[in-house]
Amino acid sequence: MNFKVGIADTTFSKIDLAPFAMDEITQLISNVKFSRYTVPGVKDLPVATKVLIEKMGCSIVLALGMPGPAPIDKQCAHEASLGLIWTQLLTNKHVIEAFTHEDEASDEKELYEIAVDRTRKHAQNLVKLILKPEELTKDAGMGKRQGHPDAGPIRQGR
Amino acid sequence: MNFKVGIADTTFSKIDLAPFAMDEITQLISNVKFSRYTVPGVKDLPVATKVLIEKMGCSIVLALGMPGPAPIDKQCAHEASLGLIWTQLLTNKHVIEAFTHEDEASDEKELYEIAVDRTRKHAQNLVKLILKPEELTKDAGMGKRQGHPDAGPIRQGR
Amino acid sequence: MNFKVGIADTTFSKIDLAPFAMDEITQLISNVKFSRYTVPGVKDLPVATKVLIEKMGCSIVLALGMPGPAPIDKQCAHEASLGLIWTQLLTNKHVIEAFTHEDEASDEKELYEIAVDRTRKHAQNLVKLILKPEELTKDAGMGKRQGHPDAGPIRQGR
Amino acid sequence: MNFKVGIADTTFSKIDLAPFAMDEITQLISNVKFSRYTVPGVKDLPVATKVLIEKMGCSIVLALGMPGPAPIDKQCAHEASLGLIWTQLLTNKHVIEAFTHEDEASDEKELYEIAVDRTRKHAQNLVKLILKPEELTKDAGMGKRQGHPDAGPIRQGR
Amino acid sequence: MNFKVGIADTTFSKIDLAPFAMDEITQLISNVKFSRYTVPGVKDLPVATKVLIEKMGCSIVLALGMPGPAPIDKQCAHEASLGLIWTQLLTNKHVIEAFTHEDEASDEKELYEIAVDRTRKHAQNLVKLILKPEELTKDAGMGKRQGHPDAGPIRQGR
Repeated sequence: MNFKVGIADTTFSKIDLAPFAMDEITQLISNVKFSRYTVPGVKDLPVATKVLIEKMGCSIVLALGMPGPAPIDKQCAHEASLGLIWTQLLTNKHVIEAFTHEDEASDEKELYEIAVDRTRKHAQNLVKLILKPEELTKDAGMGKRQGHPDAGPIRQGR
Repeated sequence: MNFKVGIADTTFSKIDLAPFAMDEITQLISNVKFSRYTVPGVKDLPVATKVLIEKMGCSIVLALGMPGPAPIDKQCAHEASLGLIWTQLLTNKHVIEAFTHEDEASDEKELYEIAVDRTRKHAQNLVKLILKPEELTKDAGMGKRQGHPDAGPIRQGR
Repeated sequence: MNFKVGIADTTFSKIDLAPFAMDEITQLISNVKFSRYTVPGVKDLPVATKVLIEKMGCSIVLALGMPGPAPIDKQCAHEASLGLIWTQLLTNKHVIEAFTHEDEASDEKELYEIAVDRTRKHAQNLVKLILKPEELTKDAGMGKRQGHPDAGPIRQGR
Repeated sequence: MNFKVGIADTTFSKIDLAPFAMDEITQLISNVKFSRYTVPGVKDLPVATKVLIEKMGCSIVLALGMPGPAPIDKQCAHEASLGLIWTQLLTNKHVIEAFTHEDEASDEKELYEIAVDRTRKHAQNLVKLILKPEELTKDAGMGKRQGHPDAGPIRQGR
Repeated sequence: MNFKVGIADTTFSKIDLAPFAMDEITQLISNVKFSRYTVPGVKDLPVATKVLIEKMGCSIVLALGMPGPAPIDKQCAHEASLGLIWTQLLTNKHVIEAFTHEDEASDEKELYEIAVDRTRKHAQNLVKLILKPEELTKDAGMGKRQGHPDAGPIRQGR
């Protein structure tokens, strides 16, 4: 197995999350290659992920971002998310968005934990999407979460 | 009649709805083939449905998702819905969105019932779109609902 | 003159409006042909209208829908409207959106009247767009409304 | 110099603004040709402007609209604006949006003045974009407004 | 090294920011060429940036804008931002958005300082994206800001 994973991230983010993603993926795939592409902010991510796929030969991309708490930051994240969906539709490749919003946590320690957990779990999802899709199907409807403990499934009759 | 139906679903969802959809469709079409594609969350569905159509030979796709109750979840669902519309416009194939929002019900039992009912009825719609479009036209303007009882039509003079 | 008009509508709608549209158009154009395409809800309309144009040979399409009153219904209508605009840009053909929102009226009788009036007037607009564009230009800036009485123009110095 | 300007407008608008635009442009360019395309409402403008460019040979288009004051009208204007941006990206031609919102003014007289001023100034902008781009660059950052007096520039140290 | 940088800006903006961008870039790259393209408002920027890339040979573009404080201005900025993302996806080139919102500051002096700082820092980002991508990666997750002091990184255990 020999393919390249793209990691797109930002200088706006307050945590350098790419090393966690690469660590997780390296544990799961031997001989994986990475292309890392850092941009200023989340709105620069869509084209970066498209270039990672179309010009740098990546089969799948993880897009890391940490939008701020203000309404304008939320709008930027919305625009970026739409752009990441367009990238995927234009390339037929997955771009997994792993954004952590600064206002998701009550303090920096919790924010750090959420961001790292989400990054690691989405790195696992990335590997499954490429190499082990049956593991995702086994978890369909299981209330999986990234950044937080799993919500778990609802069972009939509860 | 020999065609393939795509089922795209998520690990985020709290209910494994694909079996209900496949059960319903199997009752209505003999020899139907399925391709199932599970992704982490609803924003990963647009590219999954496009790949089901363009790479896996599906004629139509059912997209199952269960967005959470927070504003960010609503925004994700909105972005996913736009992506599903783009998939359809880029492929000229139907992707039926069957999303159940976690806050549609007052408890888990009701949520389960809504989700299963919506999934089964949209599975029926999927079959009609492909094989029996005249049955949909017969029901045009009839106030059909999925997940809830039909609203029914308004008649002149009421 | 020999062309085909597409009518796209939904089973979600509470009023079967297509007959009013076809009646109006038939009165205005002799020998017109129709293709009718019924889908479950408004978000299924964009691809239906694209297929009507690209696969079924329609020169223009009327898209009939009746979005519900809840916020999620409004969001669905917004997504559908964007999809209808994309269909038009991808085909260079008009798709006239004639949506009536369930909460536009205070009772079912008024809703029925609004929906039928809007459908008939937009059917007239459809004919003008194809056959008599100069009649639309004559009415430019005249405050025309569909579903309600015309607002009328503002004149200088009023 | 011999080129064609497209004017797209609506019957929904309460003021017939195209004559003001054409008057302004005619004063600035001799021998200019116009194609006028009137549609029912602002959501019909995107495809009209695309057809003006791609089928009717226009080098640039002015899109005139007057959205109503209700939330649904605002949403329609938003959808139309996005469509006008897509038209431009798909054609690499400018479509200048000159929309006047009905609730921008406190009475009809003021609304009329705003709409006419905005139309005339955007007609001037249209001419500059095609023939005198250096005049726009001279005004970069000058706080120019259409429909209202110019805001003017902020100067360092103020 | 010989390439062209596009600068797109508006007459709506209250500050002429392009000279600051060009000054910054000139300090960092010798022999750089610029194409400047001024449009009326931010919604005209997407096509301008696409033309700068596709017709004028620019490798990267800086889009300068200063949206007003009203809700309609915010909506225009949102539409423009989406358009700038589409330009990038359609060209596989970066368009760095450097918008300063009029209501970001409490007075004109502060607004001026924010706008100039953001413009200069995004001009630096532009140079790094083209010539020194490794400098951006070095700053990944460092909480970089434009228009304001850097937020700085969150470190584990804080």
